[in-house]
Amino acid sequence: MKALILVAHGSRRKVSNIEVIQIATRLAGQVKDNYMHVGHAFLELASPSIPEAIEDAIVKGAKEVVILPYFLSAGRHVHEDVPEFVLQKQKQHPDIKISLAPYLGGSSDIIKLLASISNLY
Amino acid sequence: MKALILVAHGSRRKVSNIEVIQIATRLAGQVKDNYMHVGHAFLELASPSIPEAIEDAIVKGAKEVVILPYFLSAGRHVHEDVPEFVLQKQKQHPDIKISLAPYLGGSSDIIKLLASISNLY
Repeated sequence: MKALILVAHGSRRKVSNIEVIQIATRLAGQVKDNYMHVGHAFLELASPSIPEAIEDAIVKGAKEVVILPYFLSAGRHVHEDVPEFVLQKQKQHPDIKISLAPYLGGSSDIIKLLASISNLY
Repeated sequence: MKALILVAHGSRRKVSNIEVIQIATRLAGQVKDNYMHVGHAFLELASPSIPEAIEDAIVKGAKEVVILPYFLSAGRHVHEDVPEFVLQKQKQHPDIKISLAPYLGGSSDIIKLLASISNLY
């Protein structure tokens, strides 16, 4: 069983965190052929944390967990903090495959998406 | 002449700001049929500011300026700070049409993009 976890920074504003949960819920519908479970996690300021969300996926039966960073720029969070959590959890669960997908902003398709929004104007 | 300005938060890390400039440059190639000029601006911590980038576009001959917020969540920056700059500049230049496009994270296509990244795993 494969699980996907959308990881966002987390905000003091509840509405921003709710937006992330809504995106994860909508994403679940789009990837249901590939992922039995889609969760969400926050790096800071909100819960669940990344380790909590990974544990939850494993408890639900995941044998593979993919972490998808919902970040636009490749700062310390993307390069150090998120990978560190993944590494820690991988050590605790050597029988589970935990993968880190590229961060959203690094996708070449982000340019196409920006272009399609721009071309509506 | 129409101009597009990609607006990001801005970072203390130069490499993050350079990433935004590179995205604006690549975006220019994709929207060249619609926009004669594509600039970039930062809300905080880096330059040019939003007013500076709008002025630059006008000096270059823009009669229409579209502001595209490169933000994932609809916080204070998206709802208050960016629109406030747009409003101020619109008042200063009533002969120029200055529009605010929806922020990136609000696009329904962002779900498709996240799904396509996820489905590679």
